[in-house]
Amino acid sequence: MATVHRRGFSTVGVREITAAAGVAQGSFTNHFASKEEFGVAILDHYFEENRTIIARTLEDESRRPEERLRAYFDTVTDLLAAAEWRYGCMAGNMALEASEHSEPIRERVNEGLRGVESAFATVIREGQAAGEFPAELDPDEVGALLLEAWHGAMLRMKTERSPAPLARFKRIFLPSILGRSQPAHERK
Amino acid sequence: MATVHRRGFSTVGVREITAAAGVAQGSFTNHFASKEEFGVAILDHYFEENRTIIARTLEDESRRPEERLRAYFDTVTDLLAAAEWRYGCMAGNMALEASEHSEPIRERVNEGLRGVESAFATVIREGQAAGEFPAELDPDEVGALLLEAWHGAMLRMKTERSPAPLARFKRIFLPSILGRSQPAHERK
Repeated sequence: MATVHRRGFSTVGVREITAAAGVAQGSFTNHFASKEEFGVAILDHYFEENRTIIARTLEDESRRPEERLRAYFDTVTDLLAAAEWRYGCMAGNMALEASEHSEPIRERVNEGLRGVESAFATVIREGQAAGEFPAELDPDEVGALLLEAWHGAMLRMKTERSPAPLARFKRIFLPSILGRSQPAHERK
Repeated sequence: MATVHRRGFSTVGVREITAAAGVAQGSFTNHFASKEEFGVAILDHYFEENRTIIARTLEDESRRPEERLRAYFDTVTDLLAAAEWRYGCMAGNMALEASEHSEPIRERVNEGLRGVESAFATVIREGQAAGEFPAELDPDEVGALLLEAWHGAMLRMKTERSPAPLARFKRIFLPSILGRSQPAHERK
């Protein structure tokens, strides 16, 4: 999977995948009818791992809603740091490069991303019920925006090989979109 | 260029590029020492076209600052509509798929994106001088965030093949990040 992540799904061949995994090429074709089917399986695995992060952060009711959101973004940041800011979100990469050529991959990416958005929206609703976020926020729209802006930050992190876009997202975008006032000196 | 845009830079071969352009393969190798050099030339062309959009929108001093920003995003939206929401920003695509494998492409992408960010930052400074935007915004940071969130919106537009993420960016993100109050009914 590291090979696919590093090289990009479209450019990597089945031979290269099996070589990196140290298995015979036949063991690939026994499991997957096509590279496309393998791509969907990669996404299944990826979104399952992401579900674990969601459960530990966004669904951790011992934390206040905004802390849950920050815990999610901080956990992903730690994973991105481990790859030295060179690799962004695999779903985002697959979205841009493979979803154009494959309808099953595009659908799996969308389904997975909608799951993340929806987990954000739930936290926003709970924050509203607790009086932590303004009642006039639309939880679904703001949930979608959180994910979109975060993907854009990861894209830029990758080209700059720098965590600055992720820090900017947390420091400026997050309080701004959640309608929370912020001391002027923190915006600098 | 349409072929590169559609197929992705990493997967397309020189033979395919020259076939799509209806020229002999030798005419490619006469002009470009490598596919990488061709990639940088594509980006030069792309960012030049983007400069024209910037001049007509962000630098149009007959409009108020927020209108200039909206004119930029609306102009790009029209281009994305013409491709039926299937193709996002080429620089974003190149950023994710090619910048990993090529240092010159990564540098050209960064240089181009910094130019766009800086044009946003100038509009924000002018809006602050005119009293249209809050003085406490950091123009460079907000300029970078505008571009990052817009890239994320285009990524999602592409996977969903829908303009909804672009509309959400303009309706909710833009007024929120610019620190402008917004009637609750418009946030719905």
